[in-house]
Amino acid sequence: MKIAVLGTGDVGRQIATRLVGLGHEVRLGSRTRDNPAGLAWAAEAETGSLETFEGACRESEVVFLCVRGEHARAVLGAAGNLDGTVVVDVTNPLDFSSGFPPTLSVANTESLAEQLQEAFPAARIVKTLNTLSNPLMVDPRQLPDEHHIFLSGNDADAKAVVRRLLESFGWRPHEVLDLGDISTARGTEMWLPLWLRLYGVLGTPLFNIKLVRAT
Amino acid sequence: MKIAVLGTGDVGRQIATRLVGLGHEVRLGSRTRDNPAGLAWAAEAETGSLETFEGACRESEVVFLCVRGEHARAVLGAAGNLDGTVVVDVTNPLDFSSGFPPTLSVANTESLAEQLQEAFPAARIVKTLNTLSNPLMVDPRQLPDEHHIFLSGNDADAKAVVRRLLESFGWRPHEVLDLGDISTARGTEMWLPLWLRLYGVLGTPLFNIKLVRAT
Repeated sequence: MKIAVLGTGDVGRQIATRLVGLGHEVRLGSRTRDNPAGLAWAAEAETGSLETFEGACRESEVVFLCVRGEHARAVLGAAGNLDGTVVVDVTNPLDFSSGFPPTLSVANTESLAEQLQEAFPAARIVKTLNTLSNPLMVDPRQLPDEHHIFLSGNDADAKAVVRRLLESFGWRPHEVLDLGDISTARGTEMWLPLWLRLYGVLGTPLFNIKLVRAT
Repeated sequence: MKIAVLGTGDVGRQIATRLVGLGHEVRLGSRTRDNPAGLAWAAEAETGSLETFEGACRESEVVFLCVRGEHARAVLGAAGNLDGTVVVDVTNPLDFSSGFPPTLSVANTESLAEQLQEAFPAARIVKTLNTLSNPLMVDPRQLPDEHHIFLSGNDADAKAVVRRLLESFGWRPHEVLDLGDISTARGTEMWLPLWLRLYGVLGTPLFNIKLVRAT
């Protein structure tokens, strides 16, 4: 599958490397083609190249959005025509302007995912993977028990495409819970403040939640 | 222990019944002493009585606050002198004025727990149990696996008192995570939007989260 990964930070490179390993045609996208982290990734990767955001997205069936929340809208705006494209929104609207822990720049009555879907109405946005740290996103079997992630999006076919990719990362079908339409991303984005506190208490980002129900 | 439980709804009655069963001297508090749910509870309970908020809190060492978030501040204001009292804040600032799912009336840059601590600076407020449904609060072993709850509060001794009560409910020591000061309640209150969506997807309120970490 032709896949663009926008963002050369830890999340983008981690996902891009995993996708290359799964045999996809991966282009990492950055604002410029001389991004050092992106060039280093491309030099190490067996296949895959560094492109501009627009170059990476051209003809891509799926676009992973892995930039800081504050840049999400501008980056999708620079990505060219996204009509019909499945956009996997991994971002969180973290606002570090008042220090740590960050607050959210959008919360409660809307979410970053909804803002992006509204700004790019023909893109098929699916929010997922924003609830845990990047090593676990692409290798969930690192944890010694089952654990869960979530899907939010308005397009059932797009969610099915994303679900298959997640399963190829190692997520078991029952571990991926479809919460409903894109507004349900409010819930997963608002999980971040608790995640950040738990990171402090547990002393590792390598944790996630398992939903335990009564039998 | 002399304990007041403020609020005659499901949460208050559930907690009051559990405390009676554990041998505590429990007074259920309501705005008026003729509250029907409260009278019915007192008639059924082996011990325990229905009082006004102030009557219930008089001489109580611990006060459970189990009212709707919108009433939390007024109810504590009607509770009389709370200086030094351990107040277990089980509330959530849910705002149903725009329908379902509710939004939060306070979030992100503050929390209801912080507002209460600021309004009643000599009370020792501990936020806990607001992250799961009331049958599980007082009987966590209903679930077939370990699962976790959280403590937020500024007073270590008060948190220790609450921890012991939680353990008497059946919570295992390692299942009760101390997140830190009262501001960490932002995280657990902001968990509610995701909890509400999961309630819809799972079809039962009898679930909770287990934190799974890398070994």
